[in-house]
Amino acid sequence: MEKFEVKILGCGSALPTTRLNPTSQIINFRDNLFLVDCGEGTQLQMRHMQLKFSRLSHIFLSHLHGDHCFGLIGLISTLGLLNRTGDLYIHAHPDAGKVFRPLLDYFCAGLPFEVVFNPIAPQTHSVILDERSYRVSSIPLKHRVPTCGFLFEEKPGLRHIVKESIDFYQVPVKMLLPIKEGADYITPEGKVIANELLTKPANPARKYAFCSDTAYTESIIPYIEGVDLLYHEATFSEADKARAKQTMHTTALQAAKIAEQAQVKQLIIGHFSARYTDLSGLLAEAQSGFVNTVLAKEGHTYRV
Amino acid sequence: MEKFEVKILGCGSALPTTRLNPTSQIINFRDNLFLVDCGEGTQLQMRHMQLKFSRLSHIFLSHLHGDHCFGLIGLISTLGLLNRTGDLYIHAHPDAGKVFRPLLDYFCAGLPFEVVFNPIAPQTHSVILDERSYRVSSIPLKHRVPTCGFLFEEKPGLRHIVKESIDFYQVPVKMLLPIKEGADYITPEGKVIANELLTKPANPARKYAFCSDTAYTESIIPYIEGVDLLYHEATFSEADKARAKQTMHTTALQAAKIAEQAQVKQLIIGHFSARYTDLSGLLAEAQSGFVNTVLAKEGHTYRV
Repeated sequence: MEKFEVKILGCGSALPTTRLNPTSQIINFRDNLFLVDCGEGTQLQMRHMQLKFSRLSHIFLSHLHGDHCFGLIGLISTLGLLNRTGDLYIHAHPDAGKVFRPLLDYFCAGLPFEVVFNPIAPQTHSVILDERSYRVSSIPLKHRVPTCGFLFEEKPGLRHIVKESIDFYQVPVKMLLPIKEGADYITPEGKVIANELLTKPANPARKYAFCSDTAYTESIIPYIEGVDLLYHEATFSEADKARAKQTMHTTALQAAKIAEQAQVKQLIIGHFSARYTDLSGLLAEAQSGFVNTVLAKEGHTYRV
Repeated sequence: MEKFEVKILGCGSALPTTRLNPTSQIINFRDNLFLVDCGEGTQLQMRHMQLKFSRLSHIFLSHLHGDHCFGLIGLISTLGLLNRTGDLYIHAHPDAGKVFRPLLDYFCAGLPFEVVFNPIAPQTHSVILDERSYRVSSIPLKHRVPTCGFLFEEKPGLRHIVKESIDFYQVPVKMLLPIKEGADYITPEGKVIANELLTKPANPARKYAFCSDTAYTESIIPYIEGVDLLYHEATFSEADKARAKQTMHTTALQAAKIAEQAQVKQLIIGHFSARYTDLSGLLAEAQSGFVNTVLAKEGHTYRV
């Protein structure tokens, strides 16, 4: 299976602590790096985790709260010092360009690359990136400011050749690609060999969904149904449910309910409030609603 | 002696490394905290070092390069979340307000305190703060953008009462303050008792000077002459002198020459380029020019 994994750089919430950094994570899809959110210190976390800055071309910002974007200007500045080249895309709310462009102009004049702000409409489910092997789209969330999650979808790969059948039917090499793409093989005698006899199914296309920050909302379920891995915020425990509602965040149990209803394969909970020094209570609470739950852990890599 | 010390939060240069943070340091003067520069991650360093955010009312920015100010917005945002009150002063180049005010408006609406940008003229030696017990002034430096250092001066304290003399001359309590301030005592019989008979000299007033970033410039010597402690940048070694000149930074030996000429008591060198993984060469180089030199070390406290 080709690489498709998520590395957590920060899984704390607004108030940074000595234990947790603000939100950011790296999606590694076949050695292309995508950064989701960029709290203060993201570039330092990337260094600590020895991630290759040069492989980063797309940054996705869920919303414009400081704990999700205060690291952006420092990261871009460093990418400049490192002489990175190639356009750098920031997919974010239209205000992002308005807010950060003046900073770039003031602090990062003469960058060796273009910074392209791609305005996205956080309140719609829209395709942001559509490439040969993957697609990224937005997931409308419910928070105090316009916010969206992100769905990273692998596109179905080619079917796998069954070497024995290919040899048996003496299929010429030039026919292999169409056959991998699903074509039947027609012999020189005109006999049709069904594709199913020549190939095995492609690897299943995997999906990862990032949903933070958000109040509990079942409206996201259609977008994340059946994903292999869901990162969902769980800022609070049920004991602080009123505070969760007031600040438009989710409890660990609510995150589990979303995972359960959407029938995802695995749930990572994160964006923990600074008030919880021991996260095992949040984990237990989520697992009571959805067994296959794990805690986000900074520096840890999760396979999609 | 009352507290007057410097704590290094970051002593790296533009490119952050896993070893060194960008510039910031806390001056603790009698439990008032002054922050000098605020690179990305400053608030995290303050947390790691258990510094009290509530005791911070004045931030001094030497210049508007990112490695000296990208942590400002995150720090202010956190001070807001912590419900800090009382005006917060940012003493910096006039552009600081222009650059950071829009960010504050966007990200930190409803702060429980005022942020006051106090524009300073970096190219002059001017008094920035003049309080009962201390004074802070700017030191014009020579860098690629307008830059200044900062001189923190304790004001001379009161003279110390010699209890035996006070008892001998039967000095009334209400006369003690004027005598500590230097007055002679006149007995009811009209006899003048010289102050020197009643008191011992006040503690010497201490001085700390922060000079970063700057090219080698002897023009700063009059301002820092005889200070108890000098922090001077030493971004490069003599082997990289050409690079130092080109980027308007200083070598370790040049920093030592400044300390030697200014006859300071102790020199701390910092703002080390990311290229030096072992700093002992820079230390040896500086000590060859000024013996009483130490390396800046993050987390370490230096008494003035």
